Amino acid sequence: MNEGLLVVISGASGTGKGTVCKRLFELEKNITFSVSATTRPPRQGEVDGVNYWFLSKQKFEEMIEKGEFLEWAKVYDNYYGTPLGKVEERLKNGEDILLEIDTQGALNVMEKMPQGVFIFLLPPSLEELKRRIVGRGTENQESLEKRLGAAKMEISLANKYQYVVVNDDVENAAENIKAIIKAEKSKTERNLKLLEEVI
Amino acid sequence: MNEGLLVVISGASGTGKGTVCKRLFELEKNITFSVSATTRPPRQGEVDGVNYWFLSKQKFEEMIEKGEFLEWAKVYDNYYGTPLGKVEERLKNGEDILLEIDTQGALNVMEKMPQGVFIFLLPPSLEELKRRIVGRGTENQESLEKRLGAAKMEISLANKYQYVVVNDDVENAAENIKAIIKAEKSKTERNLKLLEEVI
Repeated sequence: MNEGLLVVISGASGTGKGTVCKRLFELEKNITFSVSATTRPPRQGEVDGVNYWFLSKQKFEEMIEKGEFLEWAKVYDNYYGTPLGKVEERLKNGEDILLEIDTQGALNVMEKMPQGVFIFLLPPSLEELKRRIVGRGTENQESLEKRLGAAKMEISLANKYQYVVVNDDVENAAENIKAIIKAEKSKTERNLKLLEEVI
Repeated sequence: MNEGLLVVISGASGTGKGTVCKRLFELEKNITFSVSATTRPPRQGEVDGVNYWFLSKQKFEEMIEKGEFLEWAKVYDNYYGTPLGKVEERLKNGEDILLEIDTQGALNVMEKMPQGVFIFLLPPSLEELKRRIVGRGTENQESLEKRLGAAKMEISLANKYQYVVVNDDVENAAENIKAIIKAEKSKTERNLKLLEEVI
């Protein structure tokens, strides 16, 4: 059995990563989200190992020191991160894992797991991105400018990814990502065992 | 507009390249065969530039000397080859081109057009390949052994290709190649202009 694929989807905020990933899960039953670890307390109904791995702050910081996260971030007072061991275990079992993370996190994953598949989701244009952010109606002029500036910076990192997919249409974008996953499974370097078996 | 893709499909004889390519053309309307050049005389109904480019021996040999073939071979008294200029012209027009060639030809194309997409079609196993060749009923024991030996040699070149696709089932194999073509169009290095446009 081949190892599973680690698929990393990233892109500027407002590009629609969440919607595209949701559609991808419908198209591609064999891929699942990685479960993140966090130090925030569980909310009602949340199950350890399903919604999150709930860790104490001490445990989380120990794991950071030991390099046991693929990537992590501190948001206000809480830590969030992707435990390396859990991901490796599931990949070895042949499961495909999707990580939807920001560009900073993705750069860290590229270092730790270069065998991953790195996809950057692009807005059709900056004007369209602006329109989408304005459409949400949650931004004033100042924060809008700030977000667009940040988006531009993030998009300038797209050339570090193996693939760029334009989210002009959710269905198209999800189909493109599905094709990328299928194609990556045919990459020669992921099939060396198969080649040996045939010969 | 992005350049078209040059898709090279290769594999040991008996693997079913022809059948898979035929199915691929049904699934993928945007890709067409490259038109080969040959020095053999046209048969009834064959049209220059459609079935083949029909060239004189002198012209063909001139083109070989000038390096104007992506790959070429001499079969008995006739030359066959893929004219580089015609391929480049169509790629620039955004057309995708399929080349179904043997491993020797493919190695030459890798040198001349490394931006191509190189796919090696594998039989499920050597036993299955043997069964298929025997099934054709055209081989005696000696030539069967010879063909299997040649196949093994060809398959040992598979690791020079970017992708390997198992032809366990024509539909699966064609779908895999279709996904590879779709994914390759999302490769970052093929979309640098797009990235510039977005930013």
